[in-house]
Amino acid sequence: MPRIIVDVMPKPEILDPQGKAIAGALQRLGQTGFSAVRQGKRFELTVDGEVTEEVLEQARHAAVTLLSNPVIEDVTRVEVVKDATIGVSE
Amino acid sequence: MPRIIVDVMPKPEILDPQGKAIAGALQRLGQTGFSAVRQGKRFELTVDGEVTEEVLEQARHAAVTLLSNPVIEDVTRVEVVKDATIGVSE
Repeated sequence: MPRIIVDVMPKPEILDPQGKAIAGALQRLGQTGFSAVRQGKRFELTVDGEVTEEVLEQARHAAVTLLSNPVIEDVTRVEVVKDATIGVSE
Repeated sequence: MPRIIVDVMPKPEILDPQGKAIAGALQRLGQTGFSAVRQGKRFELTVDGEVTEEVLEQARHAAVTLLSNPVIEDVTRVEVVKDATIGVSE
């Protein structure tokens, strides 16, 4: 079944303590190739049947109302994928 | 600066209460086009300088050790993007 992927990230000007904690942990573990980490959310909405323009509009509306807090977060992606089981790219 | 995106999703066989709550909220709000929702995490690792194979290997290692819990989560993507500020696709 098709799925709609919604990515939500903290706004660039907002402090991201989780990301900061991860960046610190990477440094302590000796993985020093990274200068910053930010943590956001990823949603997979499984669609019943076809992805019509109406369903996509519903997803966009949900993204900015239910799935993100527009004060502190940006919706960075609302995209249809045929099969959401994407392997780790090599 | 280049960034590495890491997506982490709950394993398909694991119950996802957050996703279930969102699916229920969508139904109550009258957005009935969706049969299921799953919520995962998305990380943006900013890379100092070039993305070498070594840095990518560090990111893959961090993805399965620090950024995800392999018992309940799958790493679904480790990918380099030139500019992570991706607009909402229309």
